[in-house]
Amino acid sequence: MSVSRRTLLAAGPAAAAGLAMPAGAQTSSPTSASSEDRQAPGFYRYKIGDIEITAVHDGSAPRPLENFVRNADIAEVRKAAEEAFLPTDAYQNTFTPMVLRSGGKTILIDTGLGDTGAPTTGLAVTNLRAAGFDPARVDIVIISHFHGDHINGLRLKDGTTVYPNAEIMVPAPEWAFWMDDARMAQSPEGLKGSFQNARRVFGPNPKDVKQFEWGKEIAPGITAIDASGHTPGHTAFVIQSAGKSLTHVVDLTNHPRLFVRHPDWSAIFDMDADKARATRRRMLDMAAAERTQLAFYHAPFPATGHVRKEGNGFEYVPVQWMSAM
Amino acid sequence: MSVSRRTLLAAGPAAAAGLAMPAGAQTSSPTSASSEDRQAPGFYRYKIGDIEITAVHDGSAPRPLENFVRNADIAEVRKAAEEAFLPTDAYQNTFTPMVLRSGGKTILIDTGLGDTGAPTTGLAVTNLRAAGFDPARVDIVIISHFHGDHINGLRLKDGTTVYPNAEIMVPAPEWAFWMDDARMAQSPEGLKGSFQNARRVFGPNPKDVKQFEWGKEIAPGITAIDASGHTPGHTAFVIQSAGKSLTHVVDLTNHPRLFVRHPDWSAIFDMDADKARATRRRMLDMAAAERTQLAFYHAPFPATGHVRKEGNGFEYVPVQWMSAM
Repeated sequence: MSVSRRTLLAAGPAAAAGLAMPAGAQTSSPTSASSEDRQAPGFYRYKIGDIEITAVHDGSAPRPLENFVRNADIAEVRKAAEEAFLPTDAYQNTFTPMVLRSGGKTILIDTGLGDTGAPTTGLAVTNLRAAGFDPARVDIVIISHFHGDHINGLRLKDGTTVYPNAEIMVPAPEWAFWMDDARMAQSPEGLKGSFQNARRVFGPNPKDVKQFEWGKEIAPGITAIDASGHTPGHTAFVIQSAGKSLTHVVDLTNHPRLFVRHPDWSAIFDMDADKARATRRRMLDMAAAERTQLAFYHAPFPATGHVRKEGNGFEYVPVQWMSAM
Repeated sequence: MSVSRRTLLAAGPAAAAGLAMPAGAQTSSPTSASSEDRQAPGFYRYKIGDIEITAVHDGSAPRPLENFVRNADIAEVRKAAEEAFLPTDAYQNTFTPMVLRSGGKTILIDTGLGDTGAPTTGLAVTNLRAAGFDPARVDIVIISHFHGDHINGLRLKDGTTVYPNAEIMVPAPEWAFWMDDARMAQSPEGLKGSFQNARRVFGPNPKDVKQFEWGKEIAPGITAIDASGHTPGHTAFVIQSAGKSLTHVVDLTNHPRLFVRHPDWSAIFDMDADKARATRRRMLDMAAAERTQLAFYHAPFPATGHVRKEGNGFEYVPVQWMSAM
């Protein structure tokens, strides 16, 4: 799969469509590998008022449960995985960029891993094309925060810009943190790679990057809100149209079967664990009380659902898949 | 959508593939209706040992909650829908045929509504083709029971056989009940249509229909088991390969967010409510205790998950969608 994907990223629309839906596969022998191995393309469309949303699957990769939750015993974490019918050695971490068509614009929120992740990731462009979108016609790319699984899909390792005509919008507090050379110099070794990666991705064309502030409508129907803690500038998005609303909470939680259920647990990815936990409690409490539809970057595809209070945590209820919008 | 679908049923593979994945849509204007309105094709592949399973979406249709549950107050039913974040007026009833590739055979379990249902149903053939299957190459069609949403996809209203080369296998007790002319004559008016429909579907070629008994392996890796109550011959299927197992419980429940959560509730479709309830309790208890993966005909697509004990009922946990098998 890895080889096909890399080839497809380079080969463009026809080949990408070919992976998703091989020409002639409908009448070819059902014993052929092309038919057997093929999953349905990873996109899912739904509407919030007049805004069309497409969840785009960038793939998933296994993440060991060992050394994953900072403040819970591994036995507890395995028990939670078992209760959620997830594997107890390593769960599958899913990556879910989102395309919005709003106010005549095609807007992408986060980009997936590009060509920097496991062979089972980096599928965003293939799935975007399968959904009928052309990366060259994406108008705006909004970035929630600067972790590699959110930004690396902007630029391939060879320097290629994946969305060549898009305005790139990033949270001002996130830019301020990661692009500060003095802070990079002082940062622990383990974090230096993230500082350098932000420069690799945004550095070549920094003038194309527009910074946005929290509390503002940054694109038609999309308001950026402070969801910091996971990173200093981690941003959630309230998407509103025609009286309907969706809150894209991005990395407010990692896998909801673990962290919506156990909101006080801190994944190692949370840079300020206490602040992230407080933000998580506050936003999940509000979503449960107001019955708000949520989108999550790391929920199982198509990564949208609701939460309800359950014991000391919350239960995640995925939205029902519909063939028609 | 209705018109397109009917046309496609007649027009065959190329057109069907066209709905699922319009040629050239990848580079056409994303504002075109073909791109905007298109959902990903409704199929989902997974494996149970060496058996490849494909859940095939036949569509969904709204079903009012009023007069739906025989033995619960409408206020309770609406409350359960609300707790599951389903609409409180009418829920969406989903229909999910299943294709298995096992022992070199292509086997379909249940067929959807064909051209007899709402315009948002009857998508099984389109989605089968999108998944790379040719109806003419289906070797066996196994029927769980004779309700129209399970058998009508076998034969169009004009008499066309949809799976012309398939052996049709039906539960012997179900055949005995519905094909008994004396019983039809005595049956209440409301039930006569189902007797007549069974004759419409199976009557033209009754010699092609093979009856099977419970407790036997009826096709490679597929054992039929007694799940009666919903209908006199309602059958579930245990699918086993290489130490893995899936139980397809078919109509053991209607929507699991209502009837897995409240297993003592009786949907009006259950012909023998007491027996159906006892069967439901017994099979869900066993599945929860043994952590068995289940498939449901009426669960939200892709209609597979696990159940765990929760209060006096069970909680349904869908399987995590994976792009790779």
